[in-house]
Amino acid sequence: MKKVPYRIYLPEDRIPRQWHNIRANMKEQHEPFLNPATGEVLKKEDLYPVFCEELVEQEFDTTHEYIDIPDEIVEFYKMYRPSPLVRAYNLEKALNTPAKIYYKFEGNNTSGSHKLNSAVAQVYYAKKQGITKLTTETGAGQWGTALAMAAKYFNMDLTVYMVKSSYYQKPYRKAVMETFGATIIPSPSDTTEAGRAILKQFPDTNGSLGCAISEAVETAFKTENCRYVLGSVLDQVILHQSVIGLEAKAAFEMIDEYPDIIIGCAGGGSNLGGLISPFMKDKLEGKHNPYFIAVEPASCPSLTRGKYAYDFCDTGKMTPLAKMYTLGCDFQPSPNHAGGLRYHGMAPIISKLYHDGYLDEARAVEQTKVFESAVLFSQVETILPAPESAHAVHVAIQEAIKCRESGESKTILFGLTGTGYFDMTAYASFHDGTMTDYIPTDEDLERGFAKLPKV
Amino acid sequence: MKKVPYRIYLPEDRIPRQWHNIRANMKEQHEPFLNPATGEVLKKEDLYPVFCEELVEQEFDTTHEYIDIPDEIVEFYKMYRPSPLVRAYNLEKALNTPAKIYYKFEGNNTSGSHKLNSAVAQVYYAKKQGITKLTTETGAGQWGTALAMAAKYFNMDLTVYMVKSSYYQKPYRKAVMETFGATIIPSPSDTTEAGRAILKQFPDTNGSLGCAISEAVETAFKTENCRYVLGSVLDQVILHQSVIGLEAKAAFEMIDEYPDIIIGCAGGGSNLGGLISPFMKDKLEGKHNPYFIAVEPASCPSLTRGKYAYDFCDTGKMTPLAKMYTLGCDFQPSPNHAGGLRYHGMAPIISKLYHDGYLDEARAVEQTKVFESAVLFSQVETILPAPESAHAVHVAIQEAIKCRESGESKTILFGLTGTGYFDMTAYASFHDGTMTDYIPTDEDLERGFAKLPKV
Repeated sequence: MKKVPYRIYLPEDRIPRQWHNIRANMKEQHEPFLNPATGEVLKKEDLYPVFCEELVEQEFDTTHEYIDIPDEIVEFYKMYRPSPLVRAYNLEKALNTPAKIYYKFEGNNTSGSHKLNSAVAQVYYAKKQGITKLTTETGAGQWGTALAMAAKYFNMDLTVYMVKSSYYQKPYRKAVMETFGATIIPSPSDTTEAGRAILKQFPDTNGSLGCAISEAVETAFKTENCRYVLGSVLDQVILHQSVIGLEAKAAFEMIDEYPDIIIGCAGGGSNLGGLISPFMKDKLEGKHNPYFIAVEPASCPSLTRGKYAYDFCDTGKMTPLAKMYTLGCDFQPSPNHAGGLRYHGMAPIISKLYHDGYLDEARAVEQTKVFESAVLFSQVETILPAPESAHAVHVAIQEAIKCRESGESKTILFGLTGTGYFDMTAYASFHDGTMTDYIPTDEDLERGFAKLPKV
Repeated sequence: MKKVPYRIYLPEDRIPRQWHNIRANMKEQHEPFLNPATGEVLKKEDLYPVFCEELVEQEFDTTHEYIDIPDEIVEFYKMYRPSPLVRAYNLEKALNTPAKIYYKFEGNNTSGSHKLNSAVAQVYYAKKQGITKLTTETGAGQWGTALAMAAKYFNMDLTVYMVKSSYYQKPYRKAVMETFGATIIPSPSDTTEAGRAILKQFPDTNGSLGCAISEAVETAFKTENCRYVLGSVLDQVILHQSVIGLEAKAAFEMIDEYPDIIIGCAGGGSNLGGLISPFMKDKLEGKHNPYFIAVEPASCPSLTRGKYAYDFCDTGKMTPLAKMYTLGCDFQPSPNHAGGLRYHGMAPIISKLYHDGYLDEARAVEQTKVFESAVLFSQVETILPAPESAHAVHVAIQEAIKCRESGESKTILFGLTGTGYFDMTAYASFHDGTMTDYIPTDEDLERGFAKLPKV
């Protein structure tokens, strides 16, 4: 039998022409968004001031299993897609495991992550509607970079609210976004009511994704011909990110394999949702039964220790209420937590699939262990993972070691969502031994739960 | 006719199995290296204390046109090769040019550049000989990173002397190298006689590649079972880098095209030499007549304003004398010069080809213009080039504009040697307007020429 190559590239004409909408396959839909002012089920029109109309359509679409990808977006995808499915031969060798480890590598574009897949879609639809300005938030900086790239490509103005800790930890991210013409504001800022309110209450805050979202939404709302775009959590984002899973599945078909275990890191859920989408369809339809694992940081454990409840998507409580696993919208992970995966909630689709048992397992892991795995992975596979992605690396290694112990030759797929070139501060703290772990106490979490909105 | 895809990937089994040795095609060889102590022509044995034996063989080999690539090196190449040949459709559109622009992109590996191609070869041969420790220098950090990756893969100890300006400008490069287990020392340092001598004479020096070379060579010389490795200039390096040109040529064959103009940035000459190697063979054999352009910074203009003369390869005057275009081994570009391409000399192979008229043109360009082109390229092609690579981008744009003016539809190939993720300080200085240009005066250069060794 011919040996599978290290890197499996589909040809350009195999870039998906349709996104896969997992909601069309789900037995039950997640609970609807609620209007935070009225408590009523949210209507499409309620979202039009914030999101452009075609994205609102996608957000509410539970019936179309496949949605056409516009040609202009496919053209953009051609600059960095299909991304490779990589066989981790050297990691397998280092672990002495009979498991076959594959990763879908989304890091080989300038944003450094999978975020570009949805950024280009969201910018395209806004442009098509005649919108000229966009706002967003960014945490680790990957989403902001991705959006800056897409916005410049389509000649749209972009303002990015960047979580303050990242803004100062990652000045180079800022310079990259500026190369693509974006305006960057550290959040919380005094440019919005939401920002000023949070600064008044917590003058020394490092910021949070939830707070940056509030600021970006407020600005979009108050600026003419401007809309807000969001890099995770939303159903539309998981729809766009399905290109990851679709390409991965096509690549597995090409080599006549199918993964037994599928692992993704989960912050807001965009990568995990996109990676598992077409495989979840197989599971829901009884065709295959892959074991899905969501990996989250122990410092921000929304799936493993959160409540499945309605909550705001942002700290400023301006957004609709979503039914999701949440730590409470005020939750902020300890400042020693590196990189992304710091969101208080989890995408409603992911939350629902987890709650109903289709997403088999959520696993919380500590960051020093994650960086141990990141360093091993770097050394043998020569790709330096983003801290977020390293969570998936870590659990893939755990599962491969289990295979060594059991002698099973399982096929493991994980999402390597990005590269860590802009996260070297975190790597340096790991190298010099100053990196620590943080696990919130039950009391910490109870404080967040107590403030969940009564619905 | 089928449209050429954006990214042309050769399959894994088309990774070259042999390097191409351009010297076997050259009408005349470059002058031999000279022993700096005796002035005699250098013998292989003279180099054994510094380089491992098989690399010395390669350094002296002018007769074998092709040299087998060991399987272990091919296995390593599989983790990131073949690299894509990219059709710059969006750049063409932005320039409104009838030219067809292609670039061979070597940046999609963690070293961020083509340097990995030779690093793995040099480490492999040292390991095979039983060497356990290596030393090297790095300027912009790409070579040091590449070597750290290769050294860790083959379990070799590595000490990197990093040019002091880069060490402080690029702390994240250091963290990457440390992820791969390397020891990093800012140069000049007090760990060597060469370093101490330079510090005594120039206590405030920012360092230079020439000085870092002296330190690394001295340490290799004085340490048991240790050898020195060098990322550019040498004939062996251009040999290893021929994989770039071989893959590019194979990709052009696949799409039935041949480049009219081939452009590479030139610091020490490794990328340019590797890129042009098989195309130069065609020219030397009269089969094709591509126009070759070497691009160098106006601040370090070895080809355009240097002397073709014997000179030391390092500042400490420890290395053999090479006949090359040189600014004098004490030459140091102004500290405002960003990134690599700061070497005082030029690879003897490149120098000879240029002197004999086969390398058609050398063009010196100013860095603010280079960064203008880098930003344009980033915005339309979504790849953020390294400052070094941006020199080639800039001249490719100049040539494409000429085509627009003349109406000619030439095929342009340039080497996009790497990404600029670790060069954001330079980009930031461009964005905020503090970046300046520097052109040495004739008097500056005369001072360097006056000190050239008398041979």
